[in-house]
Amino acid sequence: MTTSSRKGAAPRIASSVFEADFVAGLATIFEERISFNQLLGLRIDTLEAEHVSGHLAMRPELVGHYAHNRLHGGVISATLDAMGGLAVMAAIGARHLDETPAQRLHRFGKLGTIDLRIDYLRPAIGERFLLHAQVLRLGSRVASTRMEFSSADAKLLASGSAAYIVS
Amino acid sequence: MTTSSRKGAAPRIASSVFEADFVAGLATIFEERISFNQLLGLRIDTLEAEHVSGHLAMRPELVGHYAHNRLHGGVISATLDAMGGLAVMAAIGARHLDETPAQRLHRFGKLGTIDLRIDYLRPAIGERFLLHAQVLRLGSRVASTRMEFSSADAKLLASGSAAYIVS
Amino acid sequence: MTTSSRKGAAPRIASSVFEADFVAGLATIFEERISFNQLLGLRIDTLEAEHVSGHLAMRPELVGHYAHNRLHGGVISATLDAMGGLAVMAAIGARHLDETPAQRLHRFGKLGTIDLRIDYLRPAIGERFLLHAQVLRLGSRVASTRMEFSSADAKLLASGSAAYIVS
Amino acid sequence: MTTSSRKGAAPRIASSVFEADFVAGLATIFEERISFNQLLGLRIDTLEAEHVSGHLAMRPELVGHYAHNRLHGGVISATLDAMGGLAVMAAIGARHLDETPAQRLHRFGKLGTIDLRIDYLRPAIGERFLLHAQVLRLGSRVASTRMEFSSADAKLLASGSAAYIVS
Repeated sequence: MTTSSRKGAAPRIASSVFEADFVAGLATIFEERISFNQLLGLRIDTLEAEHVSGHLAMRPELVGHYAHNRLHGGVISATLDAMGGLAVMAAIGARHLDETPAQRLHRFGKLGTIDLRIDYLRPAIGERFLLHAQVLRLGSRVASTRMEFSSADAKLLASGSAAYIVS
Repeated sequence: MTTSSRKGAAPRIASSVFEADFVAGLATIFEERISFNQLLGLRIDTLEAEHVSGHLAMRPELVGHYAHNRLHGGVISATLDAMGGLAVMAAIGARHLDETPAQRLHRFGKLGTIDLRIDYLRPAIGERFLLHAQVLRLGSRVASTRMEFSSADAKLLASGSAAYIVS
Repeated sequence: MTTSSRKGAAPRIASSVFEADFVAGLATIFEERISFNQLLGLRIDTLEAEHVSGHLAMRPELVGHYAHNRLHGGVISATLDAMGGLAVMAAIGARHLDETPAQRLHRFGKLGTIDLRIDYLRPAIGERFLLHAQVLRLGSRVASTRMEFSSADAKLLASGSAAYIVS
Repeated sequence: MTTSSRKGAAPRIASSVFEADFVAGLATIFEERISFNQLLGLRIDTLEAEHVSGHLAMRPELVGHYAHNRLHGGVISATLDAMGGLAVMAAIGARHLDETPAQRLHRFGKLGTIDLRIDYLRPAIGERFLLHAQVLRLGSRVASTRMEFSSADAKLLASGSAAYIVS
């Protein structure tokens, strides 16, 4: 189980919109079945209707600049793309609350990134990084998102925007 | 040694501009010391003045779409960013052929991605992928590149452009 | 009439794929009915299946940098966006050669830009500029293009990429 | 004079940071001497240290979609690029308050757009549009900005990001 089910314990992933089954299912797909997300160690923190957040722990394999122990820009672009997609999936999920969790999760497989832009603002150095993504527009065919990659003390390190095909 | 030095053997990395020491040094930095490139398995094939190429082998950890065995978009953005940076580095190296290989390699550490755009055109499915990057302009402070990610049979799967700070 | 109909005269707009009616109709829409294109003075030169070209004459109103008589970056982004859309329209037109010109032209009204990236490489100074656009992929819902903005002597001044919704 | 100097009258352009001379000078350069901004009718509303705003009135020449009276996407990309540059200029101006207005204004001529991304979210239909830009990072060589294009009732119509060379 991805979310805690012990009585009284706060679930690992916060959500005011989605039921535990959907949250757990989405987390399993996102954090485990998408192998590359698992390799990166990307984890979900919150899942709201058009906003999601997560985090990433620094590891030696993720280094891009050997001299400065700096996170590789590719880790930033990969995780921001993934988080943008997750935000779109949450927005789609919130639009179809009448469907079963399984039906909604099935929609995740149809999502595809059209394009992506990342602005690298400051060196990503630290033990832990925070990721946020919000949906700017969810259309019937295309969704647009904005994403942020921050340090543990909420300093903006990189900013992204992306478009996704929604089938 | 990264490039073969056995007499008569073709070197692993082709270059008409650079001496073996520089090529070997750049390959060591790019393929090994940049840990995340090593994790991805990104390898250099050619190193020319303003054009470089490389390849990447598919592996289960790099999957993004569990149902289709499709490469994660983040692998594409990460490797295209890395290849764009390598092309800039080659262009800088070619401008400073009067310097020792070590002096030129030292310049690699100063390179930084300003921003990046990736267009995802077709699903990346296959055993091996090809990467190309060329420098559109190398200025004294900023360099602009264009990158391509292709299938083994040279079908364009994704296209990128990026700007780098050159210090 | 937008294209010349005098016997023996070469038409103003070259096309090996499209009939004169379609070319004339597309030119009227693009160069005149889209008012802002007319304000900019953007003109079509060739219309092929997945490649189009055009040109633009420098005028004082289009200046961006008062001290250097440099073209405004916004003229570059606006014309490259327009040319990318024209390339998509030509690609759509070529896919529906069984339709009447009017039916094909009607499809132009449904096209919309999803997003756009422009890389400014060199100052745009000159009397006349050349524009090229090609379709990298035409899907059933989304099309991706690459565009180039060059000086009269074919030096690349700016490069663009864009995604369009195709309905 | 660009800003009002009548006693007691509120100046047309609000600024809590800059003196009237600097504001007036920047407005003259931005709204008049940059000819294409004047052609578009782009006007400044506020000038703060790392945030600026402005507006644009709809006019028939700015139409992109003849059937729907929709603003041309190129007007959006051009004005967002201009506003991003203005935000950088304001940030630079705020860093050099020890200089005379003329010295600070001179710095505007050295600014150049490296690249630009625009996401078109909703059709731009209306009589008047609002523009906002903020500086995400001002470095010694490169500045990054985020821009928004909204309807008169503050609905987000397009979003942009850009990088500028700061010399």
